[in-house]
Amino acid sequence: MVRFDRDQRFLHGGDYNPDQWLDYPDIIKEDAEMMAVARINTVTLGIFSWAQLEPQEGVFHFDWLDEAIETIYQKGGNVILATPSGGRPQWLSEAYPEVNRTDQFGQKHSHGFRHNHCYSSPIYREKVQVINRKLAERYGNHPALSMWHISNEYSGECFCDGCQMNWRQWLKNKYGTLEAINQSWWLNFWGNRYTDWSQVVAPSPLGEHKVHGMDLDWKRFVTEMTIDFYLAELRPIRELTPDIPVTTNFMAEGHDNHDFIPLEGIDYGEFAKHVDVISWDSYPDWHNNFETVARTAMKSAYVHDQYWSLKRQPFLVMESTPSEVNWHQINKSKRPGMHMLSAMQQLAHGSDSTLYFQWRKSRGNSEKFHGAVVDHDNSMENRVFKEVAEYGRRLETIAEIKGTSKEVKVAIIFDWDSNWALKRGGGFGRPTRRYPQTLQEHYAIFWEQDIPVDIVTSEQSLGQYDLVIAPMLYLMTKKTMMMLQDYVRQGGTLVSSYFSGLVNETDLLYLGGWPKPLQELFGIDLLELDTLYDDQHNQLLYQHKFYETKDYSGVIKVLDSQILGTYETDFYAGTAAVTTKNYGQGKSYYLAARTGEAFLAVFYEPIIRSLRLENQLVTQGNPEVSVQRRVGKNCQYHFMMNFSEECQTIVISRKVTDMESGQSLIGKLSLKPYEVRIVKE
Amino acid sequence: MVRFDRDQRFLHGGDYNPDQWLDYPDIIKEDAEMMAVARINTVTLGIFSWAQLEPQEGVFHFDWLDEAIETIYQKGGNVILATPSGGRPQWLSEAYPEVNRTDQFGQKHSHGFRHNHCYSSPIYREKVQVINRKLAERYGNHPALSMWHISNEYSGECFCDGCQMNWRQWLKNKYGTLEAINQSWWLNFWGNRYTDWSQVVAPSPLGEHKVHGMDLDWKRFVTEMTIDFYLAELRPIRELTPDIPVTTNFMAEGHDNHDFIPLEGIDYGEFAKHVDVISWDSYPDWHNNFETVARTAMKSAYVHDQYWSLKRQPFLVMESTPSEVNWHQINKSKRPGMHMLSAMQQLAHGSDSTLYFQWRKSRGNSEKFHGAVVDHDNSMENRVFKEVAEYGRRLETIAEIKGTSKEVKVAIIFDWDSNWALKRGGGFGRPTRRYPQTLQEHYAIFWEQDIPVDIVTSEQSLGQYDLVIAPMLYLMTKKTMMMLQDYVRQGGTLVSSYFSGLVNETDLLYLGGWPKPLQELFGIDLLELDTLYDDQHNQLLYQHKFYETKDYSGVIKVLDSQILGTYETDFYAGTAAVTTKNYGQGKSYYLAARTGEAFLAVFYEPIIRSLRLENQLVTQGNPEVSVQRRVGKNCQYHFMMNFSEECQTIVISRKVTDMESGQSLIGKLSLKPYEVRIVKE
Amino acid sequence: MVRFDRDQRFLHGGDYNPDQWLDYPDIIKEDAEMMAVARINTVTLGIFSWAQLEPQEGVFHFDWLDEAIETIYQKGGNVILATPSGGRPQWLSEAYPEVNRTDQFGQKHSHGFRHNHCYSSPIYREKVQVINRKLAERYGNHPALSMWHISNEYSGECFCDGCQMNWRQWLKNKYGTLEAINQSWWLNFWGNRYTDWSQVVAPSPLGEHKVHGMDLDWKRFVTEMTIDFYLAELRPIRELTPDIPVTTNFMAEGHDNHDFIPLEGIDYGEFAKHVDVISWDSYPDWHNNFETVARTAMKSAYVHDQYWSLKRQPFLVMESTPSEVNWHQINKSKRPGMHMLSAMQQLAHGSDSTLYFQWRKSRGNSEKFHGAVVDHDNSMENRVFKEVAEYGRRLETIAEIKGTSKEVKVAIIFDWDSNWALKRGGGFGRPTRRYPQTLQEHYAIFWEQDIPVDIVTSEQSLGQYDLVIAPMLYLMTKKTMMMLQDYVRQGGTLVSSYFSGLVNETDLLYLGGWPKPLQELFGIDLLELDTLYDDQHNQLLYQHKFYETKDYSGVIKVLDSQILGTYETDFYAGTAAVTTKNYGQGKSYYLAARTGEAFLAVFYEPIIRSLRLENQLVTQGNPEVSVQRRVGKNCQYHFMMNFSEECQTIVISRKVTDMESGQSLIGKLSLKPYEVRIVKE
Repeated sequence: MVRFDRDQRFLHGGDYNPDQWLDYPDIIKEDAEMMAVARINTVTLGIFSWAQLEPQEGVFHFDWLDEAIETIYQKGGNVILATPSGGRPQWLSEAYPEVNRTDQFGQKHSHGFRHNHCYSSPIYREKVQVINRKLAERYGNHPALSMWHISNEYSGECFCDGCQMNWRQWLKNKYGTLEAINQSWWLNFWGNRYTDWSQVVAPSPLGEHKVHGMDLDWKRFVTEMTIDFYLAELRPIRELTPDIPVTTNFMAEGHDNHDFIPLEGIDYGEFAKHVDVISWDSYPDWHNNFETVARTAMKSAYVHDQYWSLKRQPFLVMESTPSEVNWHQINKSKRPGMHMLSAMQQLAHGSDSTLYFQWRKSRGNSEKFHGAVVDHDNSMENRVFKEVAEYGRRLETIAEIKGTSKEVKVAIIFDWDSNWALKRGGGFGRPTRRYPQTLQEHYAIFWEQDIPVDIVTSEQSLGQYDLVIAPMLYLMTKKTMMMLQDYVRQGGTLVSSYFSGLVNETDLLYLGGWPKPLQELFGIDLLELDTLYDDQHNQLLYQHKFYETKDYSGVIKVLDSQILGTYETDFYAGTAAVTTKNYGQGKSYYLAARTGEAFLAVFYEPIIRSLRLENQLVTQGNPEVSVQRRVGKNCQYHFMMNFSEECQTIVISRKVTDMESGQSLIGKLSLKPYEVRIVKE
Repeated sequence: MVRFDRDQRFLHGGDYNPDQWLDYPDIIKEDAEMMAVARINTVTLGIFSWAQLEPQEGVFHFDWLDEAIETIYQKGGNVILATPSGGRPQWLSEAYPEVNRTDQFGQKHSHGFRHNHCYSSPIYREKVQVINRKLAERYGNHPALSMWHISNEYSGECFCDGCQMNWRQWLKNKYGTLEAINQSWWLNFWGNRYTDWSQVVAPSPLGEHKVHGMDLDWKRFVTEMTIDFYLAELRPIRELTPDIPVTTNFMAEGHDNHDFIPLEGIDYGEFAKHVDVISWDSYPDWHNNFETVARTAMKSAYVHDQYWSLKRQPFLVMESTPSEVNWHQINKSKRPGMHMLSAMQQLAHGSDSTLYFQWRKSRGNSEKFHGAVVDHDNSMENRVFKEVAEYGRRLETIAEIKGTSKEVKVAIIFDWDSNWALKRGGGFGRPTRRYPQTLQEHYAIFWEQDIPVDIVTSEQSLGQYDLVIAPMLYLMTKKTMMMLQDYVRQGGTLVSSYFSGLVNETDLLYLGGWPKPLQELFGIDLLELDTLYDDQHNQLLYQHKFYETKDYSGVIKVLDSQILGTYETDFYAGTAAVTTKNYGQGKSYYLAARTGEAFLAVFYEPIIRSLRLENQLVTQGNPEVSVQRRVGKNCQYHFMMNFSEECQTIVISRKVTDMESGQSLIGKLSLKPYEVRIVKE
Repeated sequence: MVRFDRDQRFLHGGDYNPDQWLDYPDIIKEDAEMMAVARINTVTLGIFSWAQLEPQEGVFHFDWLDEAIETIYQKGGNVILATPSGGRPQWLSEAYPEVNRTDQFGQKHSHGFRHNHCYSSPIYREKVQVINRKLAERYGNHPALSMWHISNEYSGECFCDGCQMNWRQWLKNKYGTLEAINQSWWLNFWGNRYTDWSQVVAPSPLGEHKVHGMDLDWKRFVTEMTIDFYLAELRPIRELTPDIPVTTNFMAEGHDNHDFIPLEGIDYGEFAKHVDVISWDSYPDWHNNFETVARTAMKSAYVHDQYWSLKRQPFLVMESTPSEVNWHQINKSKRPGMHMLSAMQQLAHGSDSTLYFQWRKSRGNSEKFHGAVVDHDNSMENRVFKEVAEYGRRLETIAEIKGTSKEVKVAIIFDWDSNWALKRGGGFGRPTRRYPQTLQEHYAIFWEQDIPVDIVTSEQSLGQYDLVIAPMLYLMTKKTMMMLQDYVRQGGTLVSSYFSGLVNETDLLYLGGWPKPLQELFGIDLLELDTLYDDQHNQLLYQHKFYETKDYSGVIKVLDSQILGTYETDFYAGTAAVTTKNYGQGKSYYLAARTGEAFLAVFYEPIIRSLRLENQLVTQGNPEVSVQRRVGKNCQYHFMMNFSEECQTIVISRKVTDMESGQSLIGKLSLKPYEVRIVKE
């Protein structure tokens, strides 16, 4: 990974599409001049350029790309070069229709849109390898090439015959026998047991679509097939340019229902193992009308931290908008100052870049109103352009932060398997599963107190953490139970909750009560899970105060744990709602009910205190001001960010230096609306 | 019907699936022990066992079923044996894909899910007969066999070529000529008249989908085809076991929109003629957040009474949950005491059983979180298990009630044809038809006063009733009109309403004013039907008080009836809204408008009084306490059920004996929350 | 156009379907008698009669139609004769399945419903020409024939192979080369550029469905294909009856979301060029629960005026209901008096007819509850029948108004292209585009002041107008810009707004700032378009008062215009929100923000005053009373219509004569609820 780290600057730039403007030579010329003003140092090229690069099968045109790369290079910039598999040329779909996806209804799709190739198609893999090899041969040694951007926003599923065959093979490899599948998916229920491998087909609304274990395995299969396609793409790249780091851009989702969480469709914990650098496309819904800016910032921070944690190393923001997106119902531009603030937040959580989709707004077609550095007015007087340029300027003054790390003592476990299985499972409250959203409610307690948190998978090591939070860890293998036991036994503090540890790796319930290792670890057994309507609540009595439960109130049996909180009403009034147990050198906590954050704040307060997790710099924090730290060899850097429209103050305990003004700061510190200050100590 | 009546006990038990647990011999062993504790005396076996019973075409394995039946028998239990057509083996779908349904878009479905076979497929009928014959041969003489459970929850439609052929043939049989169809469906409208039988195809969103008469006939056809398939299934059963009663489990629906009404898709009035015993799957949505428990109980009572009335003989609750279901959005468990109360309500309305889906929660797959007697914890200390066992104990003390009848003087007419035609008809208020829901509003008046009501079809005899309520009887044949005239002429009291008697049997409007027999019977003619928005109301003036109308305010012309109520506002202010007429020995009432229950209560009060319909035992009732009566040869049994979370009192006029405590009771009687007492006199 | 104008009477009548009643000879006999009572003088025959007229391919039966036309003629009536292509016979779909449409998923539809033929099918065109020729041959010289009604309510799209071929050809004709398409649709974005004509296919959810330029051209293509089919239908008609005027009935839409606007799917501006007389089917949603009757009347007036403006000549209301429709969720009948009022409104805005769908309610099938002159009761005592007859009587007293014109000084520009492109375009507020609805908000200001308004296309000449209102004219060709410049330069007053002039004819953004001709015309440049959530507003300060903005607040740069209003809050507080500029002999206004009508009323007030646009007759108006004028050679006719349930007064300045009572009127004039008076001066 020589090239990416070579540049001492934070990467600033983004998707650049000169291939849309080949008939507008003035525009391309102006691009270069305007990039200099905006302090752009990195561009991503070629994401959707296949049709330009290979206009006919086997005929290649690289002139425009040669020129674009050379121009960037001459200006001292970096190029992140994309493989173009995200968008096929028309001729490819025409000659080989099987490269297009088949949907779950068995309907073959035709050419159009993007990101919709069949990940099994041998011919598509072959054609992708051809163009990727060409790109690697031609540009692999170009000094501007700093990174490979493999395809774009991998996602989706295919149900064609080839994929059906792969599904069958994948299951053979995993289970060996049909009888193992019948048992693991509990297929004797409704009598749908397999008796021949030819009967095994993908889930479909027109056929089998109710088998939880099948659906869970299907999700895993989709992740594996996506990675498998990616690895096929990667082959010529690795062969020819073993020293160039590779990434692919991950996503977040949930905007339409007021959420902002990592993409749910693909297990990025698995995918992360195959990329050199994590990168993602970050589009928080700033200035929405359903939450405060600080709340949006918290969710944004959560996703940054999750993608940091996948490799516990600096990541890249591969896409973001300097202004607005075009795919919301209501698309708000960032107000003045928000671009600076939100971009700095990326760095604060571990990004080494701010890259935009896109340098210049396209003139037509589906995303013509998506924000960009350069608007249709082509003006450097444009507010957005000026804010980007100002950000570029500030980036240069804090460049030494690039490549620094983070020190984190708290981890939240997020498990893709559990999320898939929980959402699929029926029963209880279907719309109230909200596993990642519940994790964010725990996360918020720490974020508001400026305590850094990692979000790790259930496979990652926990040894480095003083506190591990694992609510709703529905699917737990025996191995995970052992790992959690070990963690606590060796002195860790663990918080878990209702819905944890109910099923095994194929979504089969554990029988005969909650698994013994968990009973031992938490000192309780589970009895019932009372499911509440929206407008229903129980009261949790904790330290002489009442807190409302919502959605779920678990009824538990205390074995040898200590009761910290009890229910006040309903038939389980007086029984335990919150328990703790000393186990080995450590301590476990069990939250039987879902509560609001008011309770979580009170609950975590003594834990934070006893584990000394408090932010050591900020002695008086402010929930609207986020302070995040990056840690270098000899220095620490603190980003202080006011996510509100009012002036806010915090108090800091140690003398620090403002990296831009050089001013020394200590004690009370005031931040203007949306202001961000970066200090060093 | 020897075997079912042989057992003197109420049937207590339910779906039992040892075939899911063949690899868990300990579980099967524990089942037998736990059933004894829970006082289970009846199990339903084999509903989805085809794949186990015939793992390959023509190869049969009965060992596990032999053993299950024998075990039950040894413990003194009954077996209800299912035919397994609700769930095909994979090999059958594979060898004969035509057994799977084709949907209304012409899309062939593949194997999966359940209840989705083509009811026309000759090969499916053949295969079903083979397995059914095998079952009848093997178990027909087993002393444990008390009843056949044919298939499971028949429902749905098929549009394959075979079904299209049957549809054509069915129409030929019914109408003889295309011209008769053209006239009956009024096909000259939009010029879609048939000129060749080959043009006749089923309604489809891709073709004809707006012809009311066609849609109505299609529904009738679906009912007939469903019954026809059932009768084909039944053939070997009847042949080999003519003395074993047969049933198939009916359903209710509407949970998702806060309703609880009989299944609308199949005319159970027709189906009832072909079963020996009515049985149904009862899943009221207890403890929901949109109505009181008493309201849920009223709806539940309504459906029980409708299924009682289909044969006017004891029915079976074939499925119910001892705790929660898994298919609501929010799935509440029954609170403590609710299982007892709701199960006793079944008996109170004429059920001779409480059977559960299911004995034991499945370990995986689509219904793994559906309630059961035995939970995943496999514990007899489980609250649900203990409540079931307690119910089993109480059942034994009241066993003499089994087989007793009911005496009912009030009937509500429900007509499947009218319901289908009303919902389809367009015009007026589309979302406000709500025919069965409106019947429930009338029913509620009587239920709250502990007056039993039958819900009969328009084909059933009315002679035994003092009061017949027939609102919204939209589709009326001449024969129905004559029957209603006869009923009143001979002394009956009849209540009808807006929307009644508008169309004939093919949904063609009666021309030239309301049909003369109805004009004569009610002494009015119809002028207009004012349709109201949600937020609109007229005022009905009745006995010096005002009541709001909603949804519909009919404007009528009084011929020779007496006006009881008038409208207060709008252009028809002052005109008649409620009328009555003495006709022959009886009396008819017409409600021109839809009102709330406040008016209905006032309206029915003098009718109840003059016909002496009041509950003779309860002199001071309580709308939260339901009192229902079963009538034996020499005794009457009253179930007194408190459907509220508070203590409630009623006053009874005669001395009765508590069947469990033996205590004598008279006068004021107090019932604890959810308490149920069964008394005898 | 001899025959239509020949009759001096307003046309009163409507769809007449004796072919539904051939088996009911009494009904047909009564029709003639009842028509006389209802003063019906015109019927539309044969809309869905193809199956009766040609029961087998090439076999024709005209007897019933001969008789119907003759009967009407004998009674002195006119016949509007329909070509029957709106509903094919079954045999035609059977013999030539390709006449049925293919949907966007590639699914071929089968026979059924109506209005769903493929407009490309050569065989369908051929068969339509055969039957049309037969009709023209047989009835072309019949003295009763006054007009041709070509097909019925043309609408919809087809995606069959033939249509795909036509699409390809249409694009070849328009663009010449694929490269021109690639540029015009900006297909290098996402790399979907065409390299072979075989790749060109219609937009589909299964293939390309995100290309704005393609979608816009597709809409144009659909309009052209619809007209092309219409012209093919017309060929034998024109050939044989060159003197009979032709029309086809246009539609309005939007009822389901509380709108009432012209049909959006077809560019009626184009279609209008090919008909002799505009006619449309008018179904405003009177007495709804979401707006006042006056508001419904305003929307109804708007659509009338738009259809008047298409040819600036009297149009026909081809369909309307005398009572209720059947396709709303809640279908209200017209209250007493509303039929008179709403029918008179048709004439007031330029209709020369009131025609009903339908003369008689059908006895069955999909529209059996749709209103009609004759109800199922077949009674002349029916309220609706009596109101229609009374209207027929009044029509005769004002017959001299027929054929008169209108004088209009204000025009609103509506552009189908802009509407299609705006709705498709993404970005900003997707649900808040509402282009035609916004035009109605401008229109309402004038309607409430009894100032007539034309709604014209951007192709129509503007010279006759003193004021032209063109907000949200998103798509503007250079030619349109020049036309607007010319209009103002020569003394016109022009109002435009945010969203105007952003894209060219293929939905490509203008680059380098707002187009120079517009900058010059309005004296501003555009900077940003702030998009507001539902619950967000800015404040517009105008003449010392504040008005809320909603949905959109444009931020602009003032070049050489005068600022009339400014924003009060947010980051663009103090900047211009409303500007004006003197340009040539005229004046331009720019509204940067969307506001409520309160602001628009204040904004237009001085413009109306200075241009002397006020209604000269009404010196004191009333927003609930609409006064509309028709202008004859020597006379003016004023319709005074009270669209409220209360008495209302207005004051008129000149002496006028009530056409019915002969009474002279001046000064204060009182109108009873729903009253309409027609005066002459």
